[in-house]
Amino acid sequence: MRQVFNFNAGPAALPKSVMLQAQSEFVDYKGCGYGIIEESHRAAAFEEVIQATEANVRRLMKISDDYEVLFLQGGASLQFAMIPMNLMLPGQKIGFCDTGEWSHKALKEARILGADIDMVYDGSGNGFSSIEGISQWSVAQDLAYLHICSNNTIYGTQYQEFPETGSVPLVADMSSDIMSREVDVNKFGLIFAGAQKNIGPAGLTLVIMRKDLLARCPDTVPTMLRFSTHAKSKSMFNTPPTFSIYMMRLVTEWLLELGGIAGMQKINQRKADLLYNYIDESGFYRGTAAATCRSKMNVCFRLPSEDLEKSFVAEAKAAGLIGLKGHRAVGGCRASIYNAVPLEGVERLVEFMREFAAKR
Amino acid sequence: MRQVFNFNAGPAALPKSVMLQAQSEFVDYKGCGYGIIEESHRAAAFEEVIQATEANVRRLMKISDDYEVLFLQGGASLQFAMIPMNLMLPGQKIGFCDTGEWSHKALKEARILGADIDMVYDGSGNGFSSIEGISQWSVAQDLAYLHICSNNTIYGTQYQEFPETGSVPLVADMSSDIMSREVDVNKFGLIFAGAQKNIGPAGLTLVIMRKDLLARCPDTVPTMLRFSTHAKSKSMFNTPPTFSIYMMRLVTEWLLELGGIAGMQKINQRKADLLYNYIDESGFYRGTAAATCRSKMNVCFRLPSEDLEKSFVAEAKAAGLIGLKGHRAVGGCRASIYNAVPLEGVERLVEFMREFAAKR
Repeated sequence: MRQVFNFNAGPAALPKSVMLQAQSEFVDYKGCGYGIIEESHRAAAFEEVIQATEANVRRLMKISDDYEVLFLQGGASLQFAMIPMNLMLPGQKIGFCDTGEWSHKALKEARILGADIDMVYDGSGNGFSSIEGISQWSVAQDLAYLHICSNNTIYGTQYQEFPETGSVPLVADMSSDIMSREVDVNKFGLIFAGAQKNIGPAGLTLVIMRKDLLARCPDTVPTMLRFSTHAKSKSMFNTPPTFSIYMMRLVTEWLLELGGIAGMQKINQRKADLLYNYIDESGFYRGTAAATCRSKMNVCFRLPSEDLEKSFVAEAKAAGLIGLKGHRAVGGCRASIYNAVPLEGVERLVEFMREFAAKR
Repeated sequence: MRQVFNFNAGPAALPKSVMLQAQSEFVDYKGCGYGIIEESHRAAAFEEVIQATEANVRRLMKISDDYEVLFLQGGASLQFAMIPMNLMLPGQKIGFCDTGEWSHKALKEARILGADIDMVYDGSGNGFSSIEGISQWSVAQDLAYLHICSNNTIYGTQYQEFPETGSVPLVADMSSDIMSREVDVNKFGLIFAGAQKNIGPAGLTLVIMRKDLLARCPDTVPTMLRFSTHAKSKSMFNTPPTFSIYMMRLVTEWLLELGGIAGMQKINQRKADLLYNYIDESGFYRGTAAATCRSKMNVCFRLPSEDLEKSFVAEAKAAGLIGLKGHRAVGGCRASIYNAVPLEGVERLVEFMREFAAKR
C-alpha cells in the first residue's frame, strides 16, 4: 500500500488505527455475523455504541450534566438554520462575529429567518486575515445569543481566546477544531461541529448544548429541527447515522488512549510549530494569516507565484502529499493538519517544501 | 464467521458482495493510499462516485431528465417537514392518505407548518391492516400535493397500485420499498426514501423530484432546507454523507448486475410467496395484513400467544435468524425481507418456523 499523507480540509484523514479496526470488523462486528452498519439502531449492540460515544465525548471534553450531547445530521450548514430557529427570542437581536465564510453563512440564515443582527465583530476590513481585540469586544447583554466560528478553514485563522459574553449564551461553530485543543465547555451555550474534520466521517454533526436553552425551542418548529426532540429521545427520534457514530466512537477511543485532548493538543502544537517555523524562515513561502491568530488546524500559505503554487500542489501530490490546494475562494496553498494527520506527515511535508524551494 | 440472516427493519442487511468490496478497499480506495471515507467531497475520486451513483439510480428507475436526483440527509423524518416547507401553496390544502405511523407523522409536520389537510384516505378504521379502494379514491384537483407512504413497515401493508391524482403531484415516501419493484416514476411529483432499508446505510436520503416543482421552493425557507439549493449544487451545497453515497453506489451496481429492478422484483416475489404461503398453510402462524395488500418487504405475523412469540424471537436469534421482533407499536413478529436478504435466508426462516411450530 502506497504511503500517503492526506491534508484534505474535510472530509479528512482518520486515524490509521481507527481505519484498520473498522476494516477488520466491517463485515462481522464482534462475531455477530454481520456489520455494525447493518445493525438496527434499536438493537443492544448499537445502543452500546451510541452510549459509549457519548460517554467518550463527555470524558474528553469534561462536559457536565448541565449539557446535552446530541448526534445529528446535516452538518454545520443545517445548524446555521436550526440554531436561530430554536434559540432566537422575540425582540432580541442575535450577535455575530464575522471572521469569514462560515460565520457569514450562519449570519445569512439568521437573516432569512427574520432575525435582527448585531454585528459584534466584522473582520472583512482586513480580508479576514486576523481576529482582532477579542478581549475588548463589547457584547450587549440583551442579545439572544452570540455566534462565533472558532477556526476558519479558508483564511487559516483561529480564536486564541474566546470573548466574554456575560449572561449571553456563546454559540460556537467548532467544526474545524473540535477536540484539537482544550476548551472550557462551561463558557458556551452551544457548541456544534460537523464531524468530518477532526472527529469522524461526513454525515454526522455533534451538538453540545446547555440544557436550560432547550426551553427556548418553540413548538412551531418542525419536530426534526427542534433540539428538544433530539434531547428527549437521546438522538434516537429517527434513525441516526449509525456507522458514522460508530466511527466517532473509535476516534474518541483513540483520543483517550493518546492522553485525551491535552495529549492531542501537545502533538498539534508541535505539528503547527514545525510547519509555521519553516514557512517563516523559508523566505520562499508566506503565511497568510496574522501571526497572532494562526490556526493550528489549517495552515494557509502562498508561494511567489500562482504558477509555482500549481506546480507545488501537483508535485506534492505525486510525492504522496495530498490535498494541499487552497480553498477556491482565496487560492494559494493550505495544509489541513487535523488530529489524525500524524507528526510524521508534517515532517514529510516540510521536507518536501524545503526540496521544492531549493530547486527554484 | 457465523452464518447469520438479518431480518432487521432498518438499518438492515446490505448485500454480502457489497460489504466485502467495501471492506477490501476501506483503507486503500483504488490504490490511492487512503479510504474513500477520508476523501474530500470536492476531489475527483468522490465526484466520480456521486456521479456514478446518480447515473445508476437514473438507469435503475428509468428516471427522465424532467427529474432531479438528490442525495440529502436527515431521513424520511426531515422530509416530512421539508416537503410542506417547499411544496405547500397559499390557500391550497395538502392531501394525505393515512396508512399508519409514517404517513401520520408526515401529516403532523404539515400541520405544525400551518397546512390545511384534506384526508383523502384514513385507514385507522381497520387498524391499518389494509389499504382499501385505492382506484376509487377521489382526489380534489386543487390540492397542493397528495402524500402517501408506499409501504408500511409496522403494519406490513403495501400499495399494490397507486392512486390517480390527475394534475395533483403525488408525493411518495418509499423508504421501505424503493427499488424493490418496478414503479413508473413519471406518475410521481416527488419520491423520497431513507437509504437504510433497501439501498444503503443510514444517514442518506434519496429524493427524486420533478423539476417544475422546484419553482415552488420559497426563499423564506432556510437554504439547507430548500430543494432548489441542492438541485442547483448537485447535492454538494455542503459536505454530503460521502461514505453512505459510496455504499449506495455499490448497492446500485449490485442491483444492475442482478438484472436491475425487474430482476430484483422477481426474487422479492419468490421470497414473499415462500413466506406468506407457509404462514397461510401453517395453521400456527397468522399474517396480520389483509391478503390483498400484503407487503413484500415487511412480513408481519402473530403466533398463538405472546409467550410463544417471545420464545420464537429468542430461539430464532440463537439459530442465526436476527431481528424478527415486531415493532413495539403492534407487537408480534416481523420478517423484513428487503432486497439484500437472500432467498436462502427466507428458506432458512421458513424451515425454522416449521420446526418451531412442530415442537408445539
